[in-house]
Amino acid sequence: MIEILAVENLPEIQEGDDLASLLARAVRASGLEVAERDVFVIAQKVISKAEGRVVRLGSIEPSDLALAWARDNDKDARMVEVVLRESRRIVRMERGVIICETRHGFICANAGVDASNTAEGTAVLLPLDPDLSARHIRAALIREFGVEVAVIISDTFGRPWREGIANVAIGLAGIAPLADYRGQNDSHGRELRVTIIAVADELASAAELVMKKSAGLPVAVIRGFDYEARDARIGEIIRAAERDLFR
Amino acid sequence: MIEILAVENLPEIQEGDDLASLLARAVRASGLEVAERDVFVIAQKVISKAEGRVVRLGSIEPSDLALAWARDNDKDARMVEVVLRESRRIVRMERGVIICETRHGFICANAGVDASNTAEGTAVLLPLDPDLSARHIRAALIREFGVEVAVIISDTFGRPWREGIANVAIGLAGIAPLADYRGQNDSHGRELRVTIIAVADELASAAELVMKKSAGLPVAVIRGFDYEARDARIGEIIRAAERDLFR
Repeated sequence: MIEILAVENLPEIQEGDDLASLLARAVRASGLEVAERDVFVIAQKVISKAEGRVVRLGSIEPSDLALAWARDNDKDARMVEVVLRESRRIVRMERGVIICETRHGFICANAGVDASNTAEGTAVLLPLDPDLSARHIRAALIREFGVEVAVIISDTFGRPWREGIANVAIGLAGIAPLADYRGQNDSHGRELRVTIIAVADELASAAELVMKKSAGLPVAVIRGFDYEARDARIGEIIRAAERDLFR
Repeated sequence: MIEILAVENLPEIQEGDDLASLLARAVRASGLEVAERDVFVIAQKVISKAEGRVVRLGSIEPSDLALAWARDNDKDARMVEVVLRESRRIVRMERGVIICETRHGFICANAGVDASNTAEGTAVLLPLDPDLSARHIRAALIREFGVEVAVIISDTFGRPWREGIANVAIGLAGIAPLADYRGQNDSHGRELRVTIIAVADELASAAELVMKKSAGLPVAVIRGFDYEARDARIGEIIRAAERDLFR
């Protein structure tokens, strides 16, 4: 059995907050016993806020491209400018939608820049190095609770072909993002072929089920999942350009 | 808290089997008490097998297109032929990969046709109408256990831009695939804008965490998730062509 628990009582996060300490305190206040191999899934937004990855739109000077796109698509030109600056490549820019490749290699709408759940006139950017953020929090949780845990940082991305957004992993520590079942036999004794499961994304999706986007529960603990515990990078889940048919 | 439980003891499924009865028996044998609003997630393969959606490759006459593609890409031409027949449109056909649009509107590799976990020389096709399959099983489970439940039929799909496959919903009954948080306020009192969560896909992904692809656990029960219970269609989660940038 797998359990997914929301961590309650986490305060509103501000720049400079020691998120790991606040999280540890919230976990203790919830009466939650942290168990060996628990997976902490943390919404990107609280990581970004603690790390000061928030921009004041008033300080942004939009480029001509941002101004033109904003005018044609009824957007805030300063937001568009922030999205362009957070992109290393534009994958699609049409019908009011900007699909970007971020500095990390993620392909998502608006380069992950978000103006919801943040103060008026500000936008939240993705963390600069989400794996590093995850490693810091993981180390602090291990010190605090004395058990080995894993940390996944999640964000909600849209997908081609399907409506709705779903939670995926954008950073991690102490857990491999992919579970490789190749070489194992299926129930008919034949070798399984294409069976590399994106477990980090599935864990992120599972966590979202208790996060309730509007209700301020940005951390979930997943217990009972048997994962490969190792020093890993989220880059392992990003498909190389030469293997990708949709760039 | 959300719990995800694997249903043990389900026998190998054959064409003509009454899957709902076998499932009910397995649930009782597991000592699992079915609770109001439990979500049953069932892997597509057992649905397809019970419904006889299995082809013998020996009976397939490959077309010239299938023969050429198979020769150039070291594939079984009969499998390629089955994939082409299960497609209503080819989205990409390059670098050894065929991305198809199925009769249902799903966009996925090989039109969902799969030769793993099935007898040698056969391939398993997607169910003709996965919503109908889900409705039949849901009705039988409600009769059997006397509580309202939801049913999701899942399959593992690859994704653009990210490695690994993840479980998504391909059919459902008694649950809305999307949770629409638009119009609700975020924690700063501003209206949330693009916050339609693909909960059916997130539930499918969560269920996969206990399914263990090679271990023959094709059914999971998810308990404690607060969903919109209604007569819904998986088609609601398929993006209309005119809104899609990656067709």
